[in-house]
Amino acid sequence: MMIMKPKPSGFLPDRALYERRESEVRSYARSMPRQFGRAEGVWMHDDQGGRYLDLLSGCSTLNYGHNHPILKQALLDYIAADGIAHGLDLHTDAKREFLAAFEELILKPRDLDHRVMFTGPTGTNAVEAAIKLARKVTGRELVIAFTNGFHGMTLGALACTGNAAKRGGAGVPLAHVSHEPYDGYYGPEVDTADLLEQRLSDPSSGLDAPAAILVETVQGEGGLNAASPEWLCRIAQIAKTHGALLIVDDIQAGCGRTGGFFSFEDMGFTPDIVTLAKSLSGMGLPFALTLLRPELDQWSPGEHNGTFRGNNHAFVTATAALRHFWSTDEFRRDADRRGALLASRLATIAAEHGFETRGRGMMRGINVGSGELAATVTGACFDAGLIIETSGAHDEVIKVLAPLVIDDAVLGTGLDILETKIREAMAADYAVAAE
Amino acid sequence: MMIMKPKPSGFLPDRALYERRESEVRSYARSMPRQFGRAEGVWMHDDQGGRYLDLLSGCSTLNYGHNHPILKQALLDYIAADGIAHGLDLHTDAKREFLAAFEELILKPRDLDHRVMFTGPTGTNAVEAAIKLARKVTGRELVIAFTNGFHGMTLGALACTGNAAKRGGAGVPLAHVSHEPYDGYYGPEVDTADLLEQRLSDPSSGLDAPAAILVETVQGEGGLNAASPEWLCRIAQIAKTHGALLIVDDIQAGCGRTGGFFSFEDMGFTPDIVTLAKSLSGMGLPFALTLLRPELDQWSPGEHNGTFRGNNHAFVTATAALRHFWSTDEFRRDADRRGALLASRLATIAAEHGFETRGRGMMRGINVGSGELAATVTGACFDAGLIIETSGAHDEVIKVLAPLVIDDAVLGTGLDILETKIREAMAADYAVAAE
Amino acid sequence: MMIMKPKPSGFLPDRALYERRESEVRSYARSMPRQFGRAEGVWMHDDQGGRYLDLLSGCSTLNYGHNHPILKQALLDYIAADGIAHGLDLHTDAKREFLAAFEELILKPRDLDHRVMFTGPTGTNAVEAAIKLARKVTGRELVIAFTNGFHGMTLGALACTGNAAKRGGAGVPLAHVSHEPYDGYYGPEVDTADLLEQRLSDPSSGLDAPAAILVETVQGEGGLNAASPEWLCRIAQIAKTHGALLIVDDIQAGCGRTGGFFSFEDMGFTPDIVTLAKSLSGMGLPFALTLLRPELDQWSPGEHNGTFRGNNHAFVTATAALRHFWSTDEFRRDADRRGALLASRLATIAAEHGFETRGRGMMRGINVGSGELAATVTGACFDAGLIIETSGAHDEVIKVLAPLVIDDAVLGTGLDILETKIREAMAADYAVAAE
Amino acid sequence: MMIMKPKPSGFLPDRALYERRESEVRSYARSMPRQFGRAEGVWMHDDQGGRYLDLLSGCSTLNYGHNHPILKQALLDYIAADGIAHGLDLHTDAKREFLAAFEELILKPRDLDHRVMFTGPTGTNAVEAAIKLARKVTGRELVIAFTNGFHGMTLGALACTGNAAKRGGAGVPLAHVSHEPYDGYYGPEVDTADLLEQRLSDPSSGLDAPAAILVETVQGEGGLNAASPEWLCRIAQIAKTHGALLIVDDIQAGCGRTGGFFSFEDMGFTPDIVTLAKSLSGMGLPFALTLLRPELDQWSPGEHNGTFRGNNHAFVTATAALRHFWSTDEFRRDADRRGALLASRLATIAAEHGFETRGRGMMRGINVGSGELAATVTGACFDAGLIIETSGAHDEVIKVLAPLVIDDAVLGTGLDILETKIREAMAADYAVAAE
Repeated sequence: MMIMKPKPSGFLPDRALYERRESEVRSYARSMPRQFGRAEGVWMHDDQGGRYLDLLSGCSTLNYGHNHPILKQALLDYIAADGIAHGLDLHTDAKREFLAAFEELILKPRDLDHRVMFTGPTGTNAVEAAIKLARKVTGRELVIAFTNGFHGMTLGALACTGNAAKRGGAGVPLAHVSHEPYDGYYGPEVDTADLLEQRLSDPSSGLDAPAAILVETVQGEGGLNAASPEWLCRIAQIAKTHGALLIVDDIQAGCGRTGGFFSFEDMGFTPDIVTLAKSLSGMGLPFALTLLRPELDQWSPGEHNGTFRGNNHAFVTATAALRHFWSTDEFRRDADRRGALLASRLATIAAEHGFETRGRGMMRGINVGSGELAATVTGACFDAGLIIETSGAHDEVIKVLAPLVIDDAVLGTGLDILETKIREAMAADYAVAAE
Repeated sequence: MMIMKPKPSGFLPDRALYERRESEVRSYARSMPRQFGRAEGVWMHDDQGGRYLDLLSGCSTLNYGHNHPILKQALLDYIAADGIAHGLDLHTDAKREFLAAFEELILKPRDLDHRVMFTGPTGTNAVEAAIKLARKVTGRELVIAFTNGFHGMTLGALACTGNAAKRGGAGVPLAHVSHEPYDGYYGPEVDTADLLEQRLSDPSSGLDAPAAILVETVQGEGGLNAASPEWLCRIAQIAKTHGALLIVDDIQAGCGRTGGFFSFEDMGFTPDIVTLAKSLSGMGLPFALTLLRPELDQWSPGEHNGTFRGNNHAFVTATAALRHFWSTDEFRRDADRRGALLASRLATIAAEHGFETRGRGMMRGINVGSGELAATVTGACFDAGLIIETSGAHDEVIKVLAPLVIDDAVLGTGLDILETKIREAMAADYAVAAE
Repeated sequence: MMIMKPKPSGFLPDRALYERRESEVRSYARSMPRQFGRAEGVWMHDDQGGRYLDLLSGCSTLNYGHNHPILKQALLDYIAADGIAHGLDLHTDAKREFLAAFEELILKPRDLDHRVMFTGPTGTNAVEAAIKLARKVTGRELVIAFTNGFHGMTLGALACTGNAAKRGGAGVPLAHVSHEPYDGYYGPEVDTADLLEQRLSDPSSGLDAPAAILVETVQGEGGLNAASPEWLCRIAQIAKTHGALLIVDDIQAGCGRTGGFFSFEDMGFTPDIVTLAKSLSGMGLPFALTLLRPELDQWSPGEHNGTFRGNNHAFVTATAALRHFWSTDEFRRDADRRGALLASRLATIAAEHGFETRGRGMMRGINVGSGELAATVTGACFDAGLIIETSGAHDEVIKVLAPLVIDDAVLGTGLDILETKIREAMAADYAVAAE
Repeated sequence: MMIMKPKPSGFLPDRALYERRESEVRSYARSMPRQFGRAEGVWMHDDQGGRYLDLLSGCSTLNYGHNHPILKQALLDYIAADGIAHGLDLHTDAKREFLAAFEELILKPRDLDHRVMFTGPTGTNAVEAAIKLARKVTGRELVIAFTNGFHGMTLGALACTGNAAKRGGAGVPLAHVSHEPYDGYYGPEVDTADLLEQRLSDPSSGLDAPAAILVETVQGEGGLNAASPEWLCRIAQIAKTHGALLIVDDIQAGCGRTGGFFSFEDMGFTPDIVTLAKSLSGMGLPFALTLLRPELDQWSPGEHNGTFRGNNHAFVTATAALRHFWSTDEFRRDADRRGALLASRLATIAAEHGFETRGRGMMRGINVGSGELAATVTGACFDAGLIIETSGAHDEVIKVLAPLVIDDAVLGTGLDILETKIREAMAADYAVAAE
């Protein structure tokens, strides 16, 4: 693998423009201060000739890599033919093709009769639609979310998000949500589903009857905590028992990231509502949707709407991605195999330093115990041409979110860099500690 | 002008698919039940050979028409060259070009020192960011919005929206917002700015000190009510006096729709925060941003974020649109002239039946007094090949949101159809009344 | 009249105790820094031999004066006989006697079929019960209250209170209430009932469908604003039209203060819910109740409760007061006559300085235009042996809340003092202005 | 002991009056349908000649029994001498005497420097004041309360209450409070203080930084759950660590009910804020207060107020009670001894049927496992002349809240009845089960 380091000086000629005109809210651009131009597959290129291996994948938005040629060509053809780019929520050929492919390749084979709601093209909008519907259908107000959950930044979804810094941005109290302990939150001995069940069954617990339980099967932002299938089944059962809808937020863990198209496949339960976004378009275009059981489809026309709720370009690439990757189970088998490889390799790296691994499928990481150490490592990786980020309450988990289509050898080389940089950082730490 | 009527039978071959799989929340597809494929300029085409003149423009999302060739070519080139489609909020060439053009062509000439915040690519997300920031900066919680205002469907923005049906979808009480009467709400004799001033100055009025006043200069969804410059200046002054930020939601009225790039140009005040979306990308791609005075840029990195907050394809088309349409003032002069034409023509149509016109610039309509009549007219227009919609608390305003680039003659022909259909509907009404 | 001035020095021997141990929240004790012991009728006595004419009456809690001999004797007899002091909400002889007298002397003659709910013995508790019930019965959440309204200090009632300083004490946003302009708020030309009607009839006004409209007929704390009967009838009609309950908070204006037992008698409407407290016990003992139409009595047993919800001592004195003062209409006729006298006298005083009077019945005052002037006057009055207080958003209204049983001559002497002190304050003001 | 059974027929001659005029919200009057008149010490008398032993004590409001002769005489003397009954929050002799006695006998001996805030005379008002102050002082909004906690029925206090039926009465969502598991909630193996500590220390737990932790040391309404001193100390420490104020709601457990004047004495921590009500006046008169550390006394004058916040009659009886019962430690020693007696006797009764006991001091009960059984027992007790009630999430705990001054023999006879009635009910249950 050839990763060219960018020139150390003058690496960001337009820094002044950004500082003058882009809001301080920008974040990734700070830890990866380059000017990027082209990208294909697993590679990103900066304007100084630097090439970077992308093990972040737009936080799981680029499961099929950058600018996959089949998706790209489909989009080029569509645009060239004056295919409708924007048509509000009108029926378009692009929407029909997507809907047909999604039914044929995703819903039917998994025996799901859910309907598709095209929400605004952001994950947070899909979550807002999901909890609005749950509240409407049940006539209840409380949503149960979980510790370390992340569901978005608009006011309804933000209330479901655990992170204090994100929550603090609301400027108003975040209400109508209770955060309960996620699987394993109190250690392996405490079954947190039991705790939830007890409180919901107790009419004096102070926990109101919930409209919905909103859960990620793997907490992407919260530290790659992966819930066990047993726990998720319990949660599904608890929701049913207490008249609440089960919403699985599959925005980061879905679209193949954890193996199946949905992260909850083969676990023995079916969510009432599912949210999808990120890799749904396959090419990184804004696109989100909310799946709902037909009997829950009690929306009035336009009761939740939005200008961009039908992103036709995204329909085109999403359809191409579904047909290319999900017509057979080869893609899934590859991802499963690669996920096992990743797991094994990360376990080795972690074991060397007594760290723990986290995650499931191709959504895994190493908890290095402190955000400072994690930042040192990912910074060093970036300087070595590796785009990799952290996660968790203290940013203490280094997460590997490689494109699912990555070549085994390239993944291996990327993990070599990670291994080296962790080792170097640990050595430096020992050196400091020894002084 | 040739508008081909679609075949009356078999017009929607895939109806069963939509009914089986698309949520009941769909809306425009109900009043315009066609399957659309191609679109260019002011025209949309269905799969039965029908051609439609688009006087809706994606609710002002397509101010430059469908698939404008210059924008389209820029996007095709970018994609073909593997330009980055998705890069979270990293610096990309596409972002730099947009930011530079936006500064050069929009901000500097208008003497605005605002910073650009790339929010999630929906209008509602830009509004959420705006009110979060206002609450954070002021330490206050109340936002003052206006009767008939529309600001989005996520929980924070929905609280600012006036429409009861939309609000009802929240399933929880919408708090921290007070809706005050818009300009002219109580008729021409009552200055509603005075009413607001009195209540804010009264420590026992029950109206808490506001973080922000959030206003549209023309209420696109609320019935094309256009506030006077004098009233808007008063509101700006009231915000300043009472320590609140002035947020102009320019999502529908901006990007040239009312003449200038911003709807508030030359009015003598500068908003603290501005939200933009809809026509910002120029080609209908999801894109939104929030402009803020530099001293308000108190965000922590990532305090408001979102996966798709940098839609690079939209940067490309937006930049092309800025450079093509906003480098000189020809486009604006054209739009002003065409807006006057539209005003004159609508006034004539309205006068014939004693109706009132509404709006400003190329954002105008006729209040026909009832939603039923308006629906009859727009339905008949659609059957005659004209895409046109309604607005207002009772959907009683027929609104003309033509692409700004529409040819005068084509606009004239469209308005001919509207004139005829109103006349026919009124005649039918009289006939019914006479029976 | 003999009003002895207290000794200027050493007037509060126990100041240190209060400063050491009583919270800073104390208020009246600051502007009237004396140690009071005895009181009878209209007189209060301090421990330095000072005697004060009480034109405050515990903010209308002592409509029958201090320690009225008939009420006092009834209570002494009850206590001496070991009558139950505390019995939760059990049936007691004292409760039965009160209930029978209240039905016979108050409800039946006024053709009211309301039921009596014994709430916690504070006005705020009665208001909380009223709005809880309205929300429960209607299934709605919004309560409409009015500018300058005062309804209590617990979180539900405080949300209905207009005063910013009181509201600020909540420490959380006060939700589910909208404050609309009271009668005359925008001057005599604007009918604020029209404004309310328009907004409630407009489905896009942003004003949600209300559970209740909560109104005082005279705003005791808000500046003695008296609504006209016509306006109140309109409000009652608006509530009915829009499916909201009408709640009259008669805590300060009821129990004879404005003439009838209720302040809304003979106005042509019947509230759905009425709250009473203050003078209800007749002797200043804590007692409150909420009256509700029988069809609204949808409470579950104990759904709203409280330890002291049956204050038996208060039942005893309340019953004695009802039987003594409300068996004939002599008391009301006296109060009406005295109210007219008060009105006339205040008008004269006000006219001398160009001030306006406010209020109705024996609940009247003079708006002297500034809180500073009002405080100067009431301070001077106090030094002259007159207990009198202010009201209004800026404490700019000097209010006269004399016991209703006050002798005409004594009232006259009190008003003489007020007249003099206003005149002196105005002269001093001129003197200052002239320098 | 002589307990006369009331006549079985005609026991409530005025039933029609109550049904016609008293709200359905009445509760105790339903399970104890008698008309009571006199009461002294531990005895209540109905109007049919029935005498009842009161083991409910107004839910701990009558710790010194009904109409204690010393308190009664003090009140008679005060009233006879025209002592001020109502004086808003003015300094009165009665208030001074109370404040001096409270400082001398309660605060100083326990080394407490707290200040006294005279709130509205209800427990719920004292709690509202406490949480308002905590929110004001900390600038935070969240209050942590506990499962099965009961704190009152006004909106702020109700949000802190766990009971679903009570909460449901609010009609609006109850916000800004999180209910955490009380000591022992998840069984003896789970230290719920650890759970709380973990969540508060985790910046992604979704639990916002709290303004206060609000706790009862024994949950009177919640089932007589008694927290251990160790757990309470942990909670106090957790509050301190996380910048929250510790509020002990001592309304039911204080005033000697659990031994000391405060329920938390000798436990090694000092609450920041304490609420008191119920037995504070000693004679059942409405009276409540909130104690606060002097550095927290950041109230503005009148920021929390209320008409009856200085109930002078209650000051008189409270002072008499303090001087009579709390000048020496004899009363406490007696109560401790009697509490041990009660514990022992209840343990015997419970053991016979395999039940568990609950509580501390003179605040104890038996968990009989079901609300139905408990209601059968207490109903049978009432028919036998014993006033006794239930508590707990399912009303499954029979609680003994005898006056603290009860004679040992009389208490014994009361418990004999309870023992018999439990035995009879169990026998009947077995008989039913055997059929």
